Amino acid sequence: MQIEVLPSTGSPRIPYLEDRLVIVIDVLRATSTIVTALANGCQAIVPVLTSEEALEKRLTLPGSLLGGERDSLIIEGFDLGNSPFDYVPEKVGGRRVILTTSNGTRAIRDSIAAPMIWMASFINMHSIVLAVHREFENRNRLKGIVVFCAGTEERFDLPDTLCAGMLIDSLGSKILLNDLGEAARLLYRSSEDHLTDRIRNSVHGKKLISLGFERDIEYCSTPNILPIVPVVQEGEIVWLTGE
Amino acid sequence: MQIEVLPSTGSPRIPYLEDRLVIVIDVLRATSTIVTALANGCQAIVPVLTSEEALEKRLTLPGSLLGGERDSLIIEGFDLGNSPFDYVPEKVGGRRVILTTSNGTRAIRDSIAAPMIWMASFINMHSIVLAVHREFENRNRLKGIVVFCAGTEERFDLPDTLCAGMLIDSLGSKILLNDLGEAARLLYRSSEDHLTDRIRNSVHGKKLISLGFERDIEYCSTPNILPIVPVVQEGEIVWLTGE
Repeated sequence: MQIEVLPSTGSPRIPYLEDRLVIVIDVLRATSTIVTALANGCQAIVPVLTSEEALEKRLTLPGSLLGGERDSLIIEGFDLGNSPFDYVPEKVGGRRVILTTSNGTRAIRDSIAAPMIWMASFINMHSIVLAVHREFENRNRLKGIVVFCAGTEERFDLPDTLCAGMLIDSLGSKILLNDLGEAARLLYRSSEDHLTDRIRNSVHGKKLISLGFERDIEYCSTPNILPIVPVVQEGEIVWLTGE
Repeated sequence: MQIEVLPSTGSPRIPYLEDRLVIVIDVLRATSTIVTALANGCQAIVPVLTSEEALEKRLTLPGSLLGGERDSLIIEGFDLGNSPFDYVPEKVGGRRVILTTSNGTRAIRDSIAAPMIWMASFINMHSIVLAVHREFENRNRLKGIVVFCAGTEERFDLPDTLCAGMLIDSLGSKILLNDLGEAARLLYRSSEDHLTDRIRNSVHGKKLISLGFERDIEYCSTPNILPIVPVVQEGEIVWLTGE
């Protein structure tokens, strides 16, 4: 299996995606939050790029909630921020959320040429690994995987790269990697016993702590909590259903 | 000291360079070759972006040699490729070389806004570390360092990142790093006992081996061979002279 890891949105070289599974990772916090929202009964998440686009989208999807952040904080007038703890069953159960974040939703939109787009985080890693095995053992329609780390403000982000490394490490040894994939695996192996500390000490981690989101970091760096694989279908993010 | 590491040319976010020392790294092979050329008596290296620019430049610098590569091989009609072993004293002694490579010379030109640009590689690491200490202990005119990994074809490159990690690790503990700097340090620490193997197994390493350049890899991954700090002065790369 061939796996190529990209460092951030804005990557100067996006590979050919038309025959690849893209797995988007934004540990702090978009993909962790999307997984949580779906686990808590959210009907679907609609990723958009700007708050203006979110407001326009709601006109066509009445009853939807608006979620997202700019500079890590909830957008004025929105119903939900980008903390997974905002997406509780009482708020999101049975409803659509239109979501815009600085990095994660942009990476999802940048992947639109791919036939299949999933979202990974530490909290749903085990389910992602099982789903990858299922996808690649039974069929040959996909040529490989592009792991698209959303990064932070178009820059390499250690939490996302560690998460990519955990995914690669969990998929076994018969894998052909680009250099960033190899680096991600090495970084994960040297960090797996103190993941939360590494993430807390990253640039994005420190920023979230300074804003009072330490609890988000502990949650987002805990592997294998929720058995969910979010997938993009017709522009919306929903559960990947059984095959 | 603040150190920010960039992954490749084409990086979507180049930081403010006007008050930074930029250290360009292209282990395979531009910065290793530049160090070697200067050690072997080359008068100066003129970095240019294209072979056409190299030919034009020679009109104004008669007697200069043309050096560089495309797709790792010597450019047709040029005097020298991009292998450090091409830059022997009998060829380059007392002469200027006009150099164009796919990644390294581009990273140098992308750094042009900085007041000081040096070139690092494993082979001159010790001299770079000494020069950084000298520069930052005696004066405060620079705010920090940007380590500009040239990368490979606009992508993250493990050899360059390991070299950045060795530099950071050698500079001590009082350093503020971006996430890629922290990753580089972790990668170096987990690889320092088998640097050559890691570099041989990188995407660029494998390509050079397939083209018969294995000897280049062994040489370029050997730390602290040559006591030279190449610096850009008036568009040319020369030795950094004593202070």
